[in-house]
Amino acid sequence: MTGVDLNADLGEGFGVWRLTEDDALLEIVTSANVACGFHAGDPSVLRRVTAAAAARGVAVGAQVGYRDLAGFGRRFLDIAPADLTDDVLYQIGALHAFARVAGTRVAYVKPHGALYNAIVHHADQAAAVVEAVRQFDPALPVLGLPGSEWLRQAEAAGLRPVREAFADRAYTPAGTLVSRREPGSVIHDADEVVRRCVRMATEGVVTAIDGSEVEVRPESICLHGDTPGAVEIGRRVRAALVEAGVEVRAFTG
Amino acid sequence: MTGVDLNADLGEGFGVWRLTEDDALLEIVTSANVACGFHAGDPSVLRRVTAAAAARGVAVGAQVGYRDLAGFGRRFLDIAPADLTDDVLYQIGALHAFARVAGTRVAYVKPHGALYNAIVHHADQAAAVVEAVRQFDPALPVLGLPGSEWLRQAEAAGLRPVREAFADRAYTPAGTLVSRREPGSVIHDADEVVRRCVRMATEGVVTAIDGSEVEVRPESICLHGDTPGAVEIGRRVRAALVEAGVEVRAFTG
Amino acid sequence: MTGVDLNADLGEGFGVWRLTEDDALLEIVTSANVACGFHAGDPSVLRRVTAAAAARGVAVGAQVGYRDLAGFGRRFLDIAPADLTDDVLYQIGALHAFARVAGTRVAYVKPHGALYNAIVHHADQAAAVVEAVRQFDPALPVLGLPGSEWLRQAEAAGLRPVREAFADRAYTPAGTLVSRREPGSVIHDADEVVRRCVRMATEGVVTAIDGSEVEVRPESICLHGDTPGAVEIGRRVRAALVEAGVEVRAFTG
Amino acid sequence: MTGVDLNADLGEGFGVWRLTEDDALLEIVTSANVACGFHAGDPSVLRRVTAAAAARGVAVGAQVGYRDLAGFGRRFLDIAPADLTDDVLYQIGALHAFARVAGTRVAYVKPHGALYNAIVHHADQAAAVVEAVRQFDPALPVLGLPGSEWLRQAEAAGLRPVREAFADRAYTPAGTLVSRREPGSVIHDADEVVRRCVRMATEGVVTAIDGSEVEVRPESICLHGDTPGAVEIGRRVRAALVEAGVEVRAFTG
Repeated sequence: MTGVDLNADLGEGFGVWRLTEDDALLEIVTSANVACGFHAGDPSVLRRVTAAAAARGVAVGAQVGYRDLAGFGRRFLDIAPADLTDDVLYQIGALHAFARVAGTRVAYVKPHGALYNAIVHHADQAAAVVEAVRQFDPALPVLGLPGSEWLRQAEAAGLRPVREAFADRAYTPAGTLVSRREPGSVIHDADEVVRRCVRMATEGVVTAIDGSEVEVRPESICLHGDTPGAVEIGRRVRAALVEAGVEVRAFTG
Repeated sequence: MTGVDLNADLGEGFGVWRLTEDDALLEIVTSANVACGFHAGDPSVLRRVTAAAAARGVAVGAQVGYRDLAGFGRRFLDIAPADLTDDVLYQIGALHAFARVAGTRVAYVKPHGALYNAIVHHADQAAAVVEAVRQFDPALPVLGLPGSEWLRQAEAAGLRPVREAFADRAYTPAGTLVSRREPGSVIHDADEVVRRCVRMATEGVVTAIDGSEVEVRPESICLHGDTPGAVEIGRRVRAALVEAGVEVRAFTG
Repeated sequence: MTGVDLNADLGEGFGVWRLTEDDALLEIVTSANVACGFHAGDPSVLRRVTAAAAARGVAVGAQVGYRDLAGFGRRFLDIAPADLTDDVLYQIGALHAFARVAGTRVAYVKPHGALYNAIVHHADQAAAVVEAVRQFDPALPVLGLPGSEWLRQAEAAGLRPVREAFADRAYTPAGTLVSRREPGSVIHDADEVVRRCVRMATEGVVTAIDGSEVEVRPESICLHGDTPGAVEIGRRVRAALVEAGVEVRAFTG
Repeated sequence: MTGVDLNADLGEGFGVWRLTEDDALLEIVTSANVACGFHAGDPSVLRRVTAAAAARGVAVGAQVGYRDLAGFGRRFLDIAPADLTDDVLYQIGALHAFARVAGTRVAYVKPHGALYNAIVHHADQAAAVVEAVRQFDPALPVLGLPGSEWLRQAEAAGLRPVREAFADRAYTPAGTLVSRREPGSVIHDADEVVRRCVRMATEGVVTAIDGSEVEVRPESICLHGDTPGAVEIGRRVRAALVEAGVEVRAFTG
């Protein structure tokens, strides 16, 4: 039976502030990318989300980012690779404590925001994040964009690379994401998002922005949790996948 | 044979800044209280100090503090107990990652600065820190002031309380520390510091500020690492202890 | 003609996060307490709110708080008075730059959260905040609770103390606020809030929690901006005041 | 009579940490680049340094940087220009408050670290910093590298660009600085530093790393305050300039 994982960014609050509808999304996803405190996520948020994920059997992933609360980790930071390795390791360790207390474990690592984008191409920073994961636990899978330096180097280092696709992002014919600065980069039509997800999961392909077909073969599909209507679209995606005979299950299974 | 542990605060730098002479102190102490990032200690400092401690066989402790970099954790913060538990757990987890990578482990927990002082009496915050340690690992010993709420509650929760004495601080007849705001609260004379340490380790007593004898029976003696001449005094204390037939060894041994 | 000012806390976002409905509230209030970056309010928030307030002729006040983003300034911090003076001065200066650029000026100072509560009684911290205002500009009025150390010391230092009352908070017979930990401390019934505001503005009194009458004679009434329905209640309060013949105008007028 | 300004970075501490020997350097320089809190410099540091500078008649400049305490502002941050303008304005405003209280004023602006380096070429970020200065006070001079985007755009915007040279940095034949990653980028020989400074001030030229002559004609020479021996070298540079008949005076004079 065909299967696919659904992941979303969760726990992206800080102090009094909230961004993501954590409880509603935890009813939909099978993997929760939990912000670890550097771009979002204070310790009490970590506890709450980790406990809620554990209670629902959702896999907990470390969503690691640049140390940039004011910029939500969405701005490239030219940090030295050795320091980046340390920053990532610190974040994984912090989340590990809450996962352990919740009776689960950090099950994978997914970089956030500008770091995610940087290590598609930035070999030194990609190597730095790989190194942090490898040092902490070489059995940890890592989630990322097919064809990225990040997944390539992770695999070379003996980590398990997990290919993800994006539910609501437009693709170039080369299989990369259309930049958010371009028109049409984000797909807002819910029906269209649902159709694309089903096709990605069942056929492994997605229609690129120029109309061509791109092979993505995702093990996981990323739902966005911080857009209006995110929860409703997520519910529909999940229901449509199930209806199409796709098993929605954590890739860490 | 009589034995005592020597502990000191290490890794109290951040970014470009340094405070403690970590390498020199690691030649003296048997337990290193490593700052975990909330009052001091960025991830790269954590790695360096943890690796250096592991290389020398020095025990690594989590020196947890209030989230107050600007105040170096020296200002009481009226944080809700549940949030304090989470803040402490986060810090222990972060240090755990570096300890693990260095081939060692977090061997104990010691609160820092204003948190240390607060939980001598503040029952709710003491309970909150105890709870964090208990949740992470109930086998972790905790270091503190004899007679404090902190050690009392730790023991009640099944943790191992470890009594510490201060090498260079004056004591009241009741066995508490003379406040730093009082004259004579810190002993600056190196000979006097050395004599007191030997007596605390061999006889279990120290002369209070009023001339009376106070029983302290320390399992560990705290050396200060951030005062001028700290390293030299530390060396002399250790040498004098050895000469007096005291075995200097980690209490976590 | 009787007049009263309406103030509310604005700009309490940070980075991607938002808390207060700034634009809607600026249509209601005559004085905007703008968060200055220590408990909330990044520089871009400061610019946006300050410009919007200036455009509407709303007075801009410095809402100064403890340096505690994770706690939103709602936790008492035992900061040394001299350091508190500096922290407050820093925040006023930062807001001043945006006010200046927006073609307006910092028109008053109002402490936030735990600092607001602390300096009702904490004489040293009250003096520290007074000193910061006095040093920056002794012509700046300060907003606070009648009978507080803060207003008393401000007056003694030659600053103009401005009495404020709270639209939705219950009062003790002594004229202080019922602690948020007590039942009934916050009034949720919109009709009741509106009636109390009109009575405070026209008769100068409010009914305390025990049914007795308390004299408050406010120059300003504080509307809360971070509760559900805050905007709607604010609109109704303002309309009711106008209907009752009260001029809603800035106290800095 | 020929004159030159001497500037140095000061106030680069935070909380308990110190980096620069502020008092000793204030006896040497005529312009103090005061860190404003984003890469270094807490409010109490700002007060102390600003007051000390004012007492000695040293000009106070806003040393503005990226919001990156952990990286000391030495890492490029790909911040949006509008946000950078706001961050810089915030820092200038904060310093302004302390300058005002000290009886002086912010007399100029000099970017720090990675921001300084970025805006040599990064046109958008250069424009953003220029915009912040222009909005705050178009009469403020700005200090920078001759030939940089920063000085070019500042001039185009009507600000006064002030050319600075570096006492201890090697130059390329093109008049830019040799990267710190290259061998020989920093000149450690004190005699050589002194000779270069005198020649830059009197003849307007410096010998580049390939032996060729480069015209620099500095209005200000930057002394480094965070290297060992910085104070002693600074004293010698100043004495040698005076002996060579160069008037050491603030460019804001």
